[in-house]
Amino acid sequence: MINDEIVDMDKVHPALLDRGLYFGDGVYEVLRSYNGKIFALDEHLKRFLNSLAGIEINGIDISRVRQNVLMAFDSAKIKNAKIYFHITRGSGPRDHIGKDLKPNFFLTISEIGDYSKSKTDGVAVSTYPDLRWKKCWIKSLNLLPNVLAKMDAAKKGCDESILVDESGLITEGSSSAFFAIIDRAIHTAPTTANILSSITRKFTVIAAQNLGIRIVEKSLTANQAAGADELFLGVTTKDIIPVVKFDGQTISNSKPGQITKKLIAEFSKFTG
Amino acid sequence: MINDEIVDMDKVHPALLDRGLYFGDGVYEVLRSYNGKIFALDEHLKRFLNSLAGIEINGIDISRVRQNVLMAFDSAKIKNAKIYFHITRGSGPRDHIGKDLKPNFFLTISEIGDYSKSKTDGVAVSTYPDLRWKKCWIKSLNLLPNVLAKMDAAKKGCDESILVDESGLITEGSSSAFFAIIDRAIHTAPTTANILSSITRKFTVIAAQNLGIRIVEKSLTANQAAGADELFLGVTTKDIIPVVKFDGQTISNSKPGQITKKLIAEFSKFTG
Repeated sequence: MINDEIVDMDKVHPALLDRGLYFGDGVYEVLRSYNGKIFALDEHLKRFLNSLAGIEINGIDISRVRQNVLMAFDSAKIKNAKIYFHITRGSGPRDHIGKDLKPNFFLTISEIGDYSKSKTDGVAVSTYPDLRWKKCWIKSLNLLPNVLAKMDAAKKGCDESILVDESGLITEGSSSAFFAIIDRAIHTAPTTANILSSITRKFTVIAAQNLGIRIVEKSLTANQAAGADELFLGVTTKDIIPVVKFDGQTISNSKPGQITKKLIAEFSKFTG
Repeated sequence: MINDEIVDMDKVHPALLDRGLYFGDGVYEVLRSYNGKIFALDEHLKRFLNSLAGIEINGIDISRVRQNVLMAFDSAKIKNAKIYFHITRGSGPRDHIGKDLKPNFFLTISEIGDYSKSKTDGVAVSTYPDLRWKKCWIKSLNLLPNVLAKMDAAKKGCDESILVDESGLITEGSSSAFFAIIDRAIHTAPTTANILSSITRKFTVIAAQNLGIRIVEKSLTANQAAGADELFLGVTTKDIIPVVKFDGQTISNSKPGQITKKLIAEFSKFTG
């Protein structure tokens, strides 16, 4: 039955029998292009392979995924594109253990809207409990806790939700990496925490090294973050975004911080 | 792009834009009929409403869901039917915060296969880490940890995976409630644990009360379970299933236990 209509099983669209829908049994990536050039494709494909291995979806030809991404990107003719793709374990009758499954590939390309205001003015964030599962290094389709976190942020008039685990430590944003600048050093959770290996984080670290800024891999409490000199997010589609409000508390006088601005400029060298 | 084919966005089937697929942003129920009669429909609808509220999908007319279940069941003409249904927050471009979303309802009815051998001979189970999120009382479409657990059990030649949390305590099965009989009392995790409120558990408790068997709401370690006098699972589609092997260790001489058999007989009075 699809909404109020009874349909014969053999006439149901295969997408409605996708294990991605029943179980979130799949993994995804989001990447982007800057002015017609895809950024960090290799890094995203490598992480995608790790995610596939993490949930034991085997036999994916990653060169074909790469080919598909390039082909779709060429065809879309969007200069600043957001590229989303996922692979699920396949379609079939709902059963935790499927039979004869053939993975499904799905990709969308869309234009990245204007986010220049976020960059120049900064954004507000709020905290939310980290309700997620224990393998957040896998970029899986089980994103309900992230959706709930983002809904909570929206209700509070914030752009992003910063997740705090049971021990009171910040892990990451619901769809971003999180950074604090304290005493001129960048603080961010170690990748041993239950976090995704952020590719924006990786390039932020390189930018910081180029600028001679120290990186401290340390998880912070919400209080420590609220008292930081500067805060910023790392987001694939927007790279570095300054945070000017944290749980209602003003950060760096409600303006993007000086070090954050230097990092944005340095990062733009990678994407220019 | 759907598999290797580039498709215009407006020609993509709405099911491929379902937030259930992108985020697992939906909740579900599984119920069954015994010999032409749906069992515990009210209980399942009540739990479904709790799940909907848990993820803030609002405005669902539950009487219409009930009507749909009954209509589909009547139409399917299957005496021993498994009824699965879910509601997702809706379809739209992939965005954690959707706009103008209209929930999608999807339901399947299928025949329950012969499981009499499981009932007479019992099944083998194995343990697996409980990787799930922190709100397992919500029956959500984020089931990847359950799929991984079930895959692990299948590899070990087992029928079900028993989840063990970080403190070493059993929560529940990947798609079942878990019970141990120790000194003639039924032991099962308290509903304050991070578990689903099992409807089979509820009726098992009533069956036990009818038989004068004591219930102890206490989480067990894997070692305690392996040393129990009897073990059994509570599964919506099969009610009570004896467990005769736990992580390779023989339970109740590899035969369904005496108390388990009494509970099966008592449970059948509810469903007969």
